[in-house]
Amino acid sequence: MHEYLNVKKSAEISDVFWDVTEKAGLFDVIVKGLGGGRHRSVETGREFLNMSSYSYLGLDTHPRLVRAAADAVLAEGALNTSTSRMRVRFTSLLDAEEAMSELFNAEVVTVASCAAAAWAALPLVASGLFTDNEPPLMVFDRTAHFCLNAMKPSVADEAELTTVRHNDVEALEELCKTHKRVAYVADGVYSTGGQAPVKELLRLQEKYGLFLFFDEAHGVSTVGEFGRGVVLSEMGEINDQTLIITSLNKGFGASGGAVFLGPRGSQRRRTVAIRNGGPIMWSQRINTAGLGAVLASVELHRTAELTELQQRLQRNIALFDSHIETEQHGDGLPIRHVNLGDETLTVKLAEALYQEGFYTSPIFFPVIGRGKAGLRLMMRANMETADIERFCLLLAKLRAELD
Amino acid sequence: MHEYLNVKKSAEISDVFWDVTEKAGLFDVIVKGLGGGRHRSVETGREFLNMSSYSYLGLDTHPRLVRAAADAVLAEGALNTSTSRMRVRFTSLLDAEEAMSELFNAEVVTVASCAAAAWAALPLVASGLFTDNEPPLMVFDRTAHFCLNAMKPSVADEAELTTVRHNDVEALEELCKTHKRVAYVADGVYSTGGQAPVKELLRLQEKYGLFLFFDEAHGVSTVGEFGRGVVLSEMGEINDQTLIITSLNKGFGASGGAVFLGPRGSQRRRTVAIRNGGPIMWSQRINTAGLGAVLASVELHRTAELTELQQRLQRNIALFDSHIETEQHGDGLPIRHVNLGDETLTVKLAEALYQEGFYTSPIFFPVIGRGKAGLRLMMRANMETADIERFCLLLAKLRAELD
Repeated sequence: MHEYLNVKKSAEISDVFWDVTEKAGLFDVIVKGLGGGRHRSVETGREFLNMSSYSYLGLDTHPRLVRAAADAVLAEGALNTSTSRMRVRFTSLLDAEEAMSELFNAEVVTVASCAAAAWAALPLVASGLFTDNEPPLMVFDRTAHFCLNAMKPSVADEAELTTVRHNDVEALEELCKTHKRVAYVADGVYSTGGQAPVKELLRLQEKYGLFLFFDEAHGVSTVGEFGRGVVLSEMGEINDQTLIITSLNKGFGASGGAVFLGPRGSQRRRTVAIRNGGPIMWSQRINTAGLGAVLASVELHRTAELTELQQRLQRNIALFDSHIETEQHGDGLPIRHVNLGDETLTVKLAEALYQEGFYTSPIFFPVIGRGKAGLRLMMRANMETADIERFCLLLAKLRAELD
Repeated sequence: MHEYLNVKKSAEISDVFWDVTEKAGLFDVIVKGLGGGRHRSVETGREFLNMSSYSYLGLDTHPRLVRAAADAVLAEGALNTSTSRMRVRFTSLLDAEEAMSELFNAEVVTVASCAAAAWAALPLVASGLFTDNEPPLMVFDRTAHFCLNAMKPSVADEAELTTVRHNDVEALEELCKTHKRVAYVADGVYSTGGQAPVKELLRLQEKYGLFLFFDEAHGVSTVGEFGRGVVLSEMGEINDQTLIITSLNKGFGASGGAVFLGPRGSQRRRTVAIRNGGPIMWSQRINTAGLGAVLASVELHRTAELTELQQRLQRNIALFDSHIETEQHGDGLPIRHVNLGDETLTVKLAEALYQEGFYTSPIFFPVIGRGKAGLRLMMRANMETADIERFCLLLAKLRAELD
């Protein structure tokens, strides 16, 4: 018991953190969306710019995607087929998965969320069905996303499991040397900053046949040609020793999640996943609104508009980096952790920034390591230069005042 | 290892079943919806009536709900807030949860699917946070839904766990006698037919303080005043020793799932769930389309239209029962299992019915017990008398011919 989870203990630890966040008025803010990552608080009437939104390209309020979502519901006259997708599914689900498969040149199955993708895919990999029927040693990066970590008990019921320090390629290589089959579970882009050492991992894959499992929720759309993310950008194409899950709700601007099962056309992989992938079988699909947005987003990913949005995002990241020093400085990714090291200062700073019209997410242990309390910031393509500059100056000024 | 799950073994067993289903053309039928539970196969152009749809009241294609879904996306101009709901959420999410809470007189939190509801709620109950910080012995009904069973490894990492035979109140009472705190995990209405012995369970709750956890995915909307389902109908009102999860995608006609945490106004329960409920914290919310449909559906649940649809459903169930004998005969629930006992006959019968314009779901072990292969049928309010009669006559005739 409590080998992997301890909800009661986590609750005790995090309650303190949420209490102060709530007291500062930064918890459960009810809003009307104003577009462009701007919101108006219903309670206070105050307008603010969200500096911690994961819609990195601003697609969440893109008029074409929004329109496509509404149109798809009306065109199908239903949100769902009311039967398992294994039996009967709408053309729009087929179309969305084919469009995704073509865009990423991978065999793609969609699910209701990225967490459902983790639930669907991790036990499959652990079972050995993707590694010649041999359950691999499942090695988790310690800071892999919560939705991967929360699956550990299920994974451990299918295979041996161990956890290594963050990005510890050396420890992973040792395990590859001493175990016949190893699968590594990691984020492509980590939700509190940084990325997986993809090139190093590919070297281990080549040398030892390491199976790679990535959560690319923050990588897809954000970077790479056609928004392929950090993993596929470095790999070239997905291979049959790699599985990627992603959200279609973050950078992608739609709803749901997806599993990239392997190279496009892997019919066996597809069959295995559809027939045995937990929530793929018995849970909800992306509703037709989400599917409409997925299709519109795939189309947008093929145009110059995507490149332009990615470039704007890069300019905004560089602008931020030119003002504020963080550990992630210069990595070309949109997530920045302003490490303040102190819980009280963190909340005070977030509160003061909010008064000035900027919402930021204060994060604490256990979301981030002890002593690393700070602000989680995320840059977007649809931020104005003047806003970023004003924000950075304010952040520096208020930090100095409060410290 | 393999204490709860064995994906590889399940895959081996079920592959045979899915192979024959696929060969019979009953697997992954791609369709255009025609409304009223009718579909047209894109491949063959054939139109058919879905006899295995869980949209019991026909709300999945209700024009008001469909319109509300599309309108909600356009009104908000986005599918989601692109931030955890703990931090920033749209008014529509607040409105939907308040409307649900009022309708069911319970403290309701929504999630992206019923499976996500199971993931959110089961570890919370197992941790003891809902039972005075004392982790209860978690007792699962053997035939509880897959999404509950699949959570067993996580539950077992928080509390002791055992499984009892289906509806075995006697065994459960024994456990109540020998353990200080017990929680029972069951379906309100079972997806292959039948229901929980709610009255008996309430007796144990009263006598021993038994905590009850129900999946009411097939019960909510289907029966009871305002569509309260079988559990709340028999309980009167939810109490603080009961938690209910449900789908909002089945009878309810919208998207997503919900957790009824306890009596309305349980702020502590709500706080505990929002702060520690796994996917509630870090996964996707119901998108604005789904929320629009939820709000429209709640409104419909308060009108005479709901009662009328429930009555129509009851007439259709009675009509079916007057023609076809099943174990569920006369239970007033819409799920009927036509037990054929033979896999080959089951698929042949389903194939022949499909030729005549009726889609039925053939089910086999492990979806149902060994030797119980048969057709899973689900009645709906939006079925015509003539269609049900024609279907029943065909079913009897073809069954006799093929047997």
